[in-house]
Amino acid sequence: MPTGRADAPRRVLLDCDPGHDDAIAMLLAHGSPAVDLVAVTTVAGNQTLEKVTRNALAVAELVGMDVPVAAGCDRPLVRPRIVAPDIHGDSGMDGPVLPAPRRAVDRRHAVELIVETVMSAEPGEITLVPTGPLTNVAMAARREPRIVPRVREVVMMGGGYQVGNRTPVAEFNVLADPEAAHVVLNEAWPVTMVGLDLTHQAVATPDVRARLAALDTPAARFVGELLDFYGATYRTAQGFPYPPVHDPCAVAYVIDPEVLTTRRAPLDVELHGALTTGMTVADLRGDEPSPDECRTQVAVTLDPARFWDLVVDALGRVGEGT
Amino acid sequence: MPTGRADAPRRVLLDCDPGHDDAIAMLLAHGSPAVDLVAVTTVAGNQTLEKVTRNALAVAELVGMDVPVAAGCDRPLVRPRIVAPDIHGDSGMDGPVLPAPRRAVDRRHAVELIVETVMSAEPGEITLVPTGPLTNVAMAARREPRIVPRVREVVMMGGGYQVGNRTPVAEFNVLADPEAAHVVLNEAWPVTMVGLDLTHQAVATPDVRARLAALDTPAARFVGELLDFYGATYRTAQGFPYPPVHDPCAVAYVIDPEVLTTRRAPLDVELHGALTTGMTVADLRGDEPSPDECRTQVAVTLDPARFWDLVVDALGRVGEGT
Amino acid sequence: MPTGRADAPRRVLLDCDPGHDDAIAMLLAHGSPAVDLVAVTTVAGNQTLEKVTRNALAVAELVGMDVPVAAGCDRPLVRPRIVAPDIHGDSGMDGPVLPAPRRAVDRRHAVELIVETVMSAEPGEITLVPTGPLTNVAMAARREPRIVPRVREVVMMGGGYQVGNRTPVAEFNVLADPEAAHVVLNEAWPVTMVGLDLTHQAVATPDVRARLAALDTPAARFVGELLDFYGATYRTAQGFPYPPVHDPCAVAYVIDPEVLTTRRAPLDVELHGALTTGMTVADLRGDEPSPDECRTQVAVTLDPARFWDLVVDALGRVGEGT
Amino acid sequence: MPTGRADAPRRVLLDCDPGHDDAIAMLLAHGSPAVDLVAVTTVAGNQTLEKVTRNALAVAELVGMDVPVAAGCDRPLVRPRIVAPDIHGDSGMDGPVLPAPRRAVDRRHAVELIVETVMSAEPGEITLVPTGPLTNVAMAARREPRIVPRVREVVMMGGGYQVGNRTPVAEFNVLADPEAAHVVLNEAWPVTMVGLDLTHQAVATPDVRARLAALDTPAARFVGELLDFYGATYRTAQGFPYPPVHDPCAVAYVIDPEVLTTRRAPLDVELHGALTTGMTVADLRGDEPSPDECRTQVAVTLDPARFWDLVVDALGRVGEGT
Repeated sequence: MPTGRADAPRRVLLDCDPGHDDAIAMLLAHGSPAVDLVAVTTVAGNQTLEKVTRNALAVAELVGMDVPVAAGCDRPLVRPRIVAPDIHGDSGMDGPVLPAPRRAVDRRHAVELIVETVMSAEPGEITLVPTGPLTNVAMAARREPRIVPRVREVVMMGGGYQVGNRTPVAEFNVLADPEAAHVVLNEAWPVTMVGLDLTHQAVATPDVRARLAALDTPAARFVGELLDFYGATYRTAQGFPYPPVHDPCAVAYVIDPEVLTTRRAPLDVELHGALTTGMTVADLRGDEPSPDECRTQVAVTLDPARFWDLVVDALGRVGEGT
Repeated sequence: MPTGRADAPRRVLLDCDPGHDDAIAMLLAHGSPAVDLVAVTTVAGNQTLEKVTRNALAVAELVGMDVPVAAGCDRPLVRPRIVAPDIHGDSGMDGPVLPAPRRAVDRRHAVELIVETVMSAEPGEITLVPTGPLTNVAMAARREPRIVPRVREVVMMGGGYQVGNRTPVAEFNVLADPEAAHVVLNEAWPVTMVGLDLTHQAVATPDVRARLAALDTPAARFVGELLDFYGATYRTAQGFPYPPVHDPCAVAYVIDPEVLTTRRAPLDVELHGALTTGMTVADLRGDEPSPDECRTQVAVTLDPARFWDLVVDALGRVGEGT
Repeated sequence: MPTGRADAPRRVLLDCDPGHDDAIAMLLAHGSPAVDLVAVTTVAGNQTLEKVTRNALAVAELVGMDVPVAAGCDRPLVRPRIVAPDIHGDSGMDGPVLPAPRRAVDRRHAVELIVETVMSAEPGEITLVPTGPLTNVAMAARREPRIVPRVREVVMMGGGYQVGNRTPVAEFNVLADPEAAHVVLNEAWPVTMVGLDLTHQAVATPDVRARLAALDTPAARFVGELLDFYGATYRTAQGFPYPPVHDPCAVAYVIDPEVLTTRRAPLDVELHGALTTGMTVADLRGDEPSPDECRTQVAVTLDPARFWDLVVDALGRVGEGT
Repeated sequence: MPTGRADAPRRVLLDCDPGHDDAIAMLLAHGSPAVDLVAVTTVAGNQTLEKVTRNALAVAELVGMDVPVAAGCDRPLVRPRIVAPDIHGDSGMDGPVLPAPRRAVDRRHAVELIVETVMSAEPGEITLVPTGPLTNVAMAARREPRIVPRVREVVMMGGGYQVGNRTPVAEFNVLADPEAAHVVLNEAWPVTMVGLDLTHQAVATPDVRARLAALDTPAARFVGELLDFYGATYRTAQGFPYPPVHDPCAVAYVIDPEVLTTRRAPLDVELHGALTTGMTVADLRGDEPSPDECRTQVAVTLDPARFWDLVVDALGRVGEGT
């Protein structure tokens, strides 16, 4: 059972691999009054651990984000590392000129920080929001199984029950470390999978870009520069007219569950296929199971207006705090 | 290149495992003036080879269908046989009282009959319409590779690019013999996959049932009895209010390609997954490839009115010939 | 139950892909009074179907072998074709100058010929000796399941329970068509697997070569030329000082079971491994099962003197019949 | 490069799941003057983590072993936990009456203790000897990749290149966590695999039992009681007349490399097979590679006399220190 008042900010640990859309997710979590961001942890994914950690520190620097930023695993549990320079560039967050971060990375390893954060909080207090490969979260669950019943829920960006990007049926974060995704999906905590099915509805159209431009704050300009680069690579590499911003959707769901609809479904990841490894397999046959029968659910339909209102509102607040 | 005038009937070999919807597919092919049904071959699938062959003969008997009916493989290429009594009953076509067939099964094996039919026809003349597991068709392609460039096209009922029935992501016909499906999808002939994505739109609603009842012919009454049983099992076993009639959709596409829309896409079947074996994997990312780039396509959207018009029209004609 | 007197010649159908050692197996079967060679069928393996069929005809021509030679499958059941030019050269039987065969290939497909041969013989009369990929034999078992209880036994050269050649744990014939091997090993006929464990003991040493040279017949000279080429490639490609002659070991076991020891063991082939696909897996734990419990056995230890005596004796007889 | 004099004791961290033979391995490491045992860590394997940790503490108690004993992972990286009560009984070390341990388990997690031990020692100083599933060691390598070049070598008991026990081709420790074994075998440290090929030569025959009995020390009596139970289960469950004592072989190799012969070979573990998952695949074809080419080797032949001398000598010394 969740602790505290219903209107208290949700305590969130964001595990990410910035990454253009991870950066926006960080800003959304930082700027939203509904979220108490307790830590940011990094994991190799969109780029190497060193690069994504530097990016996370730079984003924190830019907006005066005063939370621990801890580096985690530099490769997947079992498989060789893959990165995504075709989308995120050589630095992992190409486009904006990043400030040289003055803050230091936390001395703890991300896995330790996840364990400590969960074990020192009340049961049901911490929500884990992984938006990169699930290596750190899986390692934490294996390292300290007692975190599992203490976590309020895991809201992950990754996967897709009917669509892939890196392969016809697999999404990058899950494909990058499918064994870790298997661990996370099979532990006894509630999991909401915010996959490509949902995030391909969160598109940074010209209208959205205009709203961001109108904010005219450093954070909004930074996001604009992110989207310039990210939009160009998404157009070139994947043929999208306007880029989907995946990771903030997971944060948005924590802020306001009404921002998207979900369907409860048994969910697992294929580890052994020749064509389907890294695919998240949801069983959508028959009637929707009850929460008692099934602790996993998938995000289905986004309310884009509500989503972008959350993003614009948070970006408008960010910078006040700097 | 197709032979003959554009309006000449299409010469079709139907490879099936009746099966309620296979029986309707037989009747549609038999009754449609746009189809010249040259042979019916049977394969273990919905029930054992012996049962589905008897059912095919009984359907042929009922409507005076004067084509060879040949029995084929009694089990899949590699895997153990699975059958579907939950949907089709113990006989494979429970419901109607079947006439004792007087016609004999053809003395040739289905694989031989497929090879002979294709090799003795003009190149581009024969269309193969498999509506059961693809064992016979795969065996024929291995047994006589020269049939492949001579076949006009393969229009198969099976698979599904975003939906399964026997597993969360696999359809019965493909799951029953995934290696055979792999052979068929990877040979150099054109393939149209009419999968569950499409056939779940071909639902025998009360309106449809009323149109069939109005025909008041022996064939229509037989179909009505088929749908009584099949509707009940679909309701019980899979929770459908009204049953989807899969197999006639493939025949309908041969009669009138406008009855459904297709999308061209690379297509293969997973043979090695723990959760996904038997899944047909279509690559729908990016732009649709041209026919020169890609010989496989999937059926997407049915025009249900047009489809049922074809079925009703054909059933109305059947019986005249008995 | 076997038919006929214990000392009647064994009726053998040899399914092969000549291939240097396949050619020696043909000569051994042809020359041995203990074998009645009823047919030779060919399958893509060491080289393409066209090449190995031509080689089989040339060997038959050379020694006046008056049996049907029928061509079979030109590729494996499911996987892409692999060939072995590193061992057998571009022709599949490089080295000797081959006579232009005057005999024609049989008009029947190998699968048909296997089925007809078994179905027209008495139950328990025909022994199948496959020394190439098992595509034809698997196709025959699927095409006509009634052959299975009529076959006396299958004595196959292929696999290895503790050693591979094409991969660390897989032998060429089984790796080339593992699904076919799976079919053959899982049908209800007795199978003796003469694998690399055994055949690596059948080495054409200088002593052996001297015995063959002493025969001074056309057949023996032909074998000498085969071994010159084959010995050289085995030295270069696999580091063997003298080449193992695999395929005649299977024929030798039919002629004289005392030529090798066997161990009964459950036996199957891996189809889904990342490192082990095509490996034949024998369960050698615990006590040896009885023939009633287990229809598969593996060849363990060769009596090399007895083996080479059989070969030399047969080669001495060959040519008398030309 | 190893540090220190050639005759200095080897600093060993033993990661185990006692387990009868693990207990003997602990005693051998404790009693041998050639080993400086720096820590014992435990992992779920022969029994649950709780049980094997209690067993490790009890063994330490019995012989006054003054090293940290830390508990590690309670389940494999990815797969469900399996245990081995058929061999080790319900307690994981059935047979002897164990003292209630007064020492407490170390407060650190085994993964942390492994990382701290290696990072605080000189490079090349610590040898890891895992004798259970490799979960802890793999987690440590992922958690802190800098340990890999600092570890002197990994000498693991597990696997088998030509023999299995839990399946026809897989050994228990590797089968229990094949993904962890994959990590350990693929990191850039030297690995010696002491598998069943070797350990099935370390059999506690009546002669061995007589030598142990003659020692007449508490430790030797304890080992005698262990072997009474373990011998009985090995006889019943696996048909061995006398039981193989696996785990001490790995420790013995650290004490005296001459106790066994090795062969250098590429080595990996199958993760995706239907019959072969958990099999350790060694490539033994061709010539043995040099240490520069290949950092993995397998143990081949044991010198049993030399091995048992080491065990008897160590057991004779144990207890002096109590």
